[in-house]
Amino acid sequence: MSSRALIVTNTTVGELYLKPLLAKLTSVNCETLIIEDGEQFKTLTTFNKILDALANGKHHRDTTLIALGGGVVGDMTGFAAACYHRGVAFIQIPTTLLSQVDASIGGKTGVNHPMGKNLIGAFHQPQAVIIDTDTLHTLPDREFRAGIAEIIKAALIQNAQFFDWLCTNIDSISRRDPGILATAIERACIIKADIVALDEKENNIRALLNFGHTFGHAIEKILNYGTWLHGEAVAMGILMASELSVRLGWLQKSDNARIIDLITKTGLPTRLPKEINHEALHEAMTSDKKVLRDQIRFVLLRDIGKGVISNEVPESTLVELLKDFTQTKEL
Amino acid sequence: MSSRALIVTNTTVGELYLKPLLAKLTSVNCETLIIEDGEQFKTLTTFNKILDALANGKHHRDTTLIALGGGVVGDMTGFAAACYHRGVAFIQIPTTLLSQVDASIGGKTGVNHPMGKNLIGAFHQPQAVIIDTDTLHTLPDREFRAGIAEIIKAALIQNAQFFDWLCTNIDSISRRDPGILATAIERACIIKADIVALDEKENNIRALLNFGHTFGHAIEKILNYGTWLHGEAVAMGILMASELSVRLGWLQKSDNARIIDLITKTGLPTRLPKEINHEALHEAMTSDKKVLRDQIRFVLLRDIGKGVISNEVPESTLVELLKDFTQTKEL
Repeated sequence: MSSRALIVTNTTVGELYLKPLLAKLTSVNCETLIIEDGEQFKTLTTFNKILDALANGKHHRDTTLIALGGGVVGDMTGFAAACYHRGVAFIQIPTTLLSQVDASIGGKTGVNHPMGKNLIGAFHQPQAVIIDTDTLHTLPDREFRAGIAEIIKAALIQNAQFFDWLCTNIDSISRRDPGILATAIERACIIKADIVALDEKENNIRALLNFGHTFGHAIEKILNYGTWLHGEAVAMGILMASELSVRLGWLQKSDNARIIDLITKTGLPTRLPKEINHEALHEAMTSDKKVLRDQIRFVLLRDIGKGVISNEVPESTLVELLKDFTQTKEL
Repeated sequence: MSSRALIVTNTTVGELYLKPLLAKLTSVNCETLIIEDGEQFKTLTTFNKILDALANGKHHRDTTLIALGGGVVGDMTGFAAACYHRGVAFIQIPTTLLSQVDASIGGKTGVNHPMGKNLIGAFHQPQAVIIDTDTLHTLPDREFRAGIAEIIKAALIQNAQFFDWLCTNIDSISRRDPGILATAIERACIIKADIVALDEKENNIRALLNFGHTFGHAIEKILNYGTWLHGEAVAMGILMASELSVRLGWLQKSDNARIIDLITKTGLPTRLPKEINHEALHEAMTSDKKVLRDQIRFVLLRDIGKGVISNEVPESTLVELLKDFTQTKEL
C-alpha cells in the first residue's frame, strides 16, 4: 500500500469506526472525507466531492482510497478510485451485512442518476475487501435483515446445499451468532466472487447475480429509493421471480414454499406495498437498465441452486404475475 | 453497431460536419448533442450533460456514442461512454490534426479538474477511429501546426527514419499536401497504437508518449490552458526535453539542432512567453500528475528515435535549464 490514503466514510459509520481504523493505520498518511449518510447522496455531486478532496489534497496516482461504510460509500469511493488519474487503488471495508456479502465484492462501482440506479459507474476491482463482522453489532435490525436477502439470493442461484444450510441456521443468523454468521458471509462472498471471476463485465453469467433484482429495482424505483431498503426489494423480487419460475413449470411448488418460508422467517417483506399497481410495476421494469434490446432479461430458477437467464417470458404470464402480486395475493 | 447512437459534437464542428455524417448514418437512430467549443468546457459539468442526454433519452447499454470533433469532444465523449452503464461502445471521428494523430488513439478519456488537466477519466478503447483528412481543410493554421507537434513527438521517441522523412517533407505537410499528410498521420497513429498495445494502462513504456508533456503541461497550466494550444506547449516541451537530453550527455548537439530546425520550420513556438518565470514552471511541474512518488518522471532522448523514461535528472540541472529557458535563452 502507498504511504498516502484517503478514507471515505459517512457520518454514521465514521462516528463508530473511523477512530479505531485510524489507530491501526499509523504508518499511512491518512486523510478523511466524511459524506452524508444515505442513498440519496449517491450522486455525481458527492462523487465530485471525493474527487475534489483527492485533487485539492494533491494525491498522486499512487494514493489509495479506503471505503469505510456500506454499499453507498463503497460504490462511490470505488467509482472515484476508478476515475481519479484514470484509476487508483482502493480498499473496501464494508460495515453492513449487505455490503459485506454483495456490494463490496465484484468491482461494480457507481452512482445513481434521476433516470436510474447505478446508471453511471465503472468496473474497478478493489485491491482488498476487509470484513470485520464485529461491525454488524451496531447495524439496525432492518438493515441486517436486508443483507440476509442477498445471502439467500446467492444460495438460490448457485448452491442448493448452502440453501439447506440457511434453512437450518436461519434463527442463529437472525440472532447474529458470530460463528454461523461468519460462515454465511464467507459462503455468499465465495459464490459471488466465483461468478464474477468468470464474467467480470457481465456479458453473460454474472447476470445471475441479478436474481430478484429485475423486480426489486422496479419496486425501489416506484418507491423512489427510500421507503424500502434494497435488500427488502430484493427479497420481494426473489419471491416474484420464484413464483414466475413455478408458473413456467421450472420450479417445484414445494421448493417455492421453502423459499417463501425462509424469507418469512427472516422478517423480510413478503407483500408489495398497497400503493404499487401492476401497470406502474410493468412500466418500471421495462425502463430498467437490465432490459436488453427492449426485451426484459429475467433471472429465474430451474431448481433451487440453479439460476438461469431468460429473455423469453411470455408477456401475458408476466402481466398475470404482476396483477396477482399487486392485488390480494396471499403467499 | 447498435441501432441507436448519440453523436456528440461542438458548435464549430457540428456546423461543418454534422449534416454530412447524419446523411451517411441513415440506418441508425441517431440523436445529437452539441456542446460548447473549447477546452474550458472539458469539465465534469459537460460530462454530466452527456450522461443526462443518454439517460433522459433512455439509451440502453447497447447504444453507441460517436465523438465528432477534436480532442476535447473525443475525451469527454469517451469518458461518458466509459461510465454510462459502466461502459458502452463509442466511435471516434476526430476532425483536428491533433486528435487524429494523438487523442483519438489509445483509449485515454477524461475531463480536466481545476487542480490539473485530465485528472479525472478512464481508459476506454473506441470500437473504431474514423479519420477523414478532408476535415483538415477547414482547420485554422494555428491548430493545424499544433497537430504537427505530436507527429514530431511520435517520430522522436520511436522512429529516426520517420523523423528524417518529416525533415524532408515538412514543407509539403505545412501546405497540407493530401498524400504526404495522410502518410504522416498514418505513421504517427501506428507508432502510438503500437506503444499503447504494449502497455495500455501506462505502467511503463506508454509514458514515452509523454515526451515534451512534462514541460508542456506545466506551461499550459501556468497559462491557464487557453493562451497556448496543447500542441504549442508540447512543441516547446520537446525543445526543453531535447536540450535537457543534450545537457545530460545523451543527445548530440547536432541532433538537437535538427529538432530545433524542424520545429522552427513548422512555425510552432520556440520560446516561452515572457511572463513565465522559472520558479512558477518548477512549481507547476512538481504538482503535475506525471510526478511519481514525488519524483518528476522525464521522458528524454538517448538519440533521435529513441525515447527513454528517467526519474533521475539532477535537481540542479533542471533548475539551470528552467532558468535558461525562462530568461533570454536563444535557441
